[in-house]
Amino acid sequence: MNIELLSIGDELLIGQTINTNAAWIGQEMSLIGARIVRTTVISDTTEAIQSSLDSIDSNTDCIIITGGLGPTKDDITKHTLCSYFNTRLEVHLPTLKKIEDYFFKRNRPMLEANIQQAELPLNCEILNNNYGTAAGMWFEEKGKIFISLPGVPYEMKGIMLEEVIPRLKEKFSLKSIYHKTALTQGIGESFLAEIIYNWENSIRSNNLGLAYLPSPGLVKLRITSYRGEEDKKIIDAYFDELKNLIPEALYGFENESLTQVIGEMLRTRKMTIGTVESCTSGLLASQICSISGASDYFMGSLLTYSNSLKISLADVSPETLEKFGAVSEEVVKEMAIGGRKKLGVDCCISTSGIAGPNGGSIEKPVGLVWIAIALPTKTIVKKFQFGDNRERTVQMTVSSALNYLRYELETT
Amino acid sequence: MNIELLSIGDELLIGQTINTNAAWIGQEMSLIGARIVRTTVISDTTEAIQSSLDSIDSNTDCIIITGGLGPTKDDITKHTLCSYFNTRLEVHLPTLKKIEDYFFKRNRPMLEANIQQAELPLNCEILNNNYGTAAGMWFEEKGKIFISLPGVPYEMKGIMLEEVIPRLKEKFSLKSIYHKTALTQGIGESFLAEIIYNWENSIRSNNLGLAYLPSPGLVKLRITSYRGEEDKKIIDAYFDELKNLIPEALYGFENESLTQVIGEMLRTRKMTIGTVESCTSGLLASQICSISGASDYFMGSLLTYSNSLKISLADVSPETLEKFGAVSEEVVKEMAIGGRKKLGVDCCISTSGIAGPNGGSIEKPVGLVWIAIALPTKTIVKKFQFGDNRERTVQMTVSSALNYLRYELETT
Repeated sequence: MNIELLSIGDELLIGQTINTNAAWIGQEMSLIGARIVRTTVISDTTEAIQSSLDSIDSNTDCIIITGGLGPTKDDITKHTLCSYFNTRLEVHLPTLKKIEDYFFKRNRPMLEANIQQAELPLNCEILNNNYGTAAGMWFEEKGKIFISLPGVPYEMKGIMLEEVIPRLKEKFSLKSIYHKTALTQGIGESFLAEIIYNWENSIRSNNLGLAYLPSPGLVKLRITSYRGEEDKKIIDAYFDELKNLIPEALYGFENESLTQVIGEMLRTRKMTIGTVESCTSGLLASQICSISGASDYFMGSLLTYSNSLKISLADVSPETLEKFGAVSEEVVKEMAIGGRKKLGVDCCISTSGIAGPNGGSIEKPVGLVWIAIALPTKTIVKKFQFGDNRERTVQMTVSSALNYLRYELETT
Repeated sequence: MNIELLSIGDELLIGQTINTNAAWIGQEMSLIGARIVRTTVISDTTEAIQSSLDSIDSNTDCIIITGGLGPTKDDITKHTLCSYFNTRLEVHLPTLKKIEDYFFKRNRPMLEANIQQAELPLNCEILNNNYGTAAGMWFEEKGKIFISLPGVPYEMKGIMLEEVIPRLKEKFSLKSIYHKTALTQGIGESFLAEIIYNWENSIRSNNLGLAYLPSPGLVKLRITSYRGEEDKKIIDAYFDELKNLIPEALYGFENESLTQVIGEMLRTRKMTIGTVESCTSGLLASQICSISGASDYFMGSLLTYSNSLKISLADVSPETLEKFGAVSEEVVKEMAIGGRKKLGVDCCISTSGIAGPNGGSIEKPVGLVWIAIALPTKTIVKKFQFGDNRERTVQMTVSSALNYLRYELETT
């Protein structure tokens, strides 16, 4: 089944509202095996709506329209649909009753504009809105299905889940799509593509889809089967193979975050954690604490931005600092070991780097970062080079440190 | 000037990525007085791109295409544009040189796919990408302007700001809109609207526009004049008036961040700063350090998530902790005073709160936060209640702490 979305609203075009409705509908439709082929965002004018309806692709089976059904004057979707389908509005008594109840319950006055919301096209099936006053509409016209929903996210979602999705499943007896997504950190998209070249070709030759979904420092790899659940085993086998190809990069599946993965590992191992941060200046700790329940394993941190605090708080020796400089293997190692002791934790991650844009030199260019992890039995250290964007370097340091710890805990 | 956006990517259609690019471009275009008339999101296939190019409205002056320019195989925008414009790809030497430099600086191997990124259509002007390897393209064909940009947000934004917007302004000699934006923190949109009711009416009666641009914890107020710079003085006078109406909330103008405002204040006062954080767990410090040059005034922090570290690191007395609990006026005050001493700074901010979703009680509900600031001459403390969303509470604590310090430094 091919679906087009039509999102109506000037607030979307000028960027005052981000179109999260389209993303949510896209996710829900993928899950039932329907395919969104196009999303169009337009202004709330009769002309724009009319012209979009006229340009629907002939292969489209269903059009989901959101927005333009509220009680204010710029809402004209309903009138435009009437003229498009050559029908007229009439008061729909059950809807009028619902709107009256809605205002009565909230003890608020009902306005003329609200009464008009009960006027609905004659040729449609009414979709119940249990979350507001604008009813949804289901038209079967011109060999296609047209669905019109309010733009307020929780009203739209309610009608979709309760009224639209069950009807679509029945109407199109949908075969289901099956997706699985692996999450990787630390290998850029192009380099990853070379490493997994043969693996990718094998996937495609099996009539499965592969998509690279990059975000700073992370690349998601999604395999899609249009044959549905029956390909689950073969896809799982591909991911097992991938895990062997890139064990240092692959940290999880689906919607897991690195922070969640590490949280689970620390919890099952009954280990506590802390950080000693210089270039990340607290972002690493705040990431670890971003999930509820982090106080089970996270104790605290020392943010030693100045050299004197590296000495007084993290027990870095003044001689090491003098001899190797703050951004060095030796100092970051002493930071992790000193922090582990001072914070009384099992595991301490330390970071020191040159975030830039200033402070670089030939031997220590902007983007150079050292990360150390002090564990009960050993301390490990790794060098990174992240380039010259300050914000990105800090983010990459955080995700690299978390993934470095994940790999270390997993393999020891 | 009428603009259409074309966002390419299956990840957008299936909702794995939310189309924040379209919202950002919409905002930027509004600022220069251009109008987004339609945004279309399509799949990364030749057919979909081709068909969208064919259905561009005749009144559209400019088409901005994002996505589909990365180095992996599912990126086909460039080839489709070549066939649409009846031209071919050729290696663009300056771009090749830039890509080589990019990999050389990062000490990473350059791959065949990256070299191919330097192959660009012959009929376009190349738009410099200072943030990645995919160049932007500017075509003037068929009486319209076509702009193709990578989909990675920070690369797209960089090229838009540095290359596209200046060219669009010149090309279309856009009638000058004059905007000025005031930045406020700590007052919700509806409450703010009540406080500034008369001020707002006076603005509107002067034929100026006022927009509320809310984001979590912050509300921007933008005054717009369609008469241009000539209204600068009258708009400045309105903002002077606003500063008197809401001195605790109004912290700056235009694109200043609270962090920048505070950085400047500390630098001119030659003061140093540090933090002792519990519920914000490093996010406050990382915000202060997010701007280059922060090492001039930021020394370091103690993240005392556990009670034992509040005692051992920040010198909070065990009796105070026992008697009042970690989230209390007394403890947060001792944290700030202890941290000021331990970190050797002029000014120390401390935070302690219940971020949730668990850990609340009737006396201390989820969302309760205490913030203290220890200064050379005094220590001040304030209580906040932020509701039950963990992430929002942490963010609100950070912005409230920064704004509290800003107001204190400004008024003493």
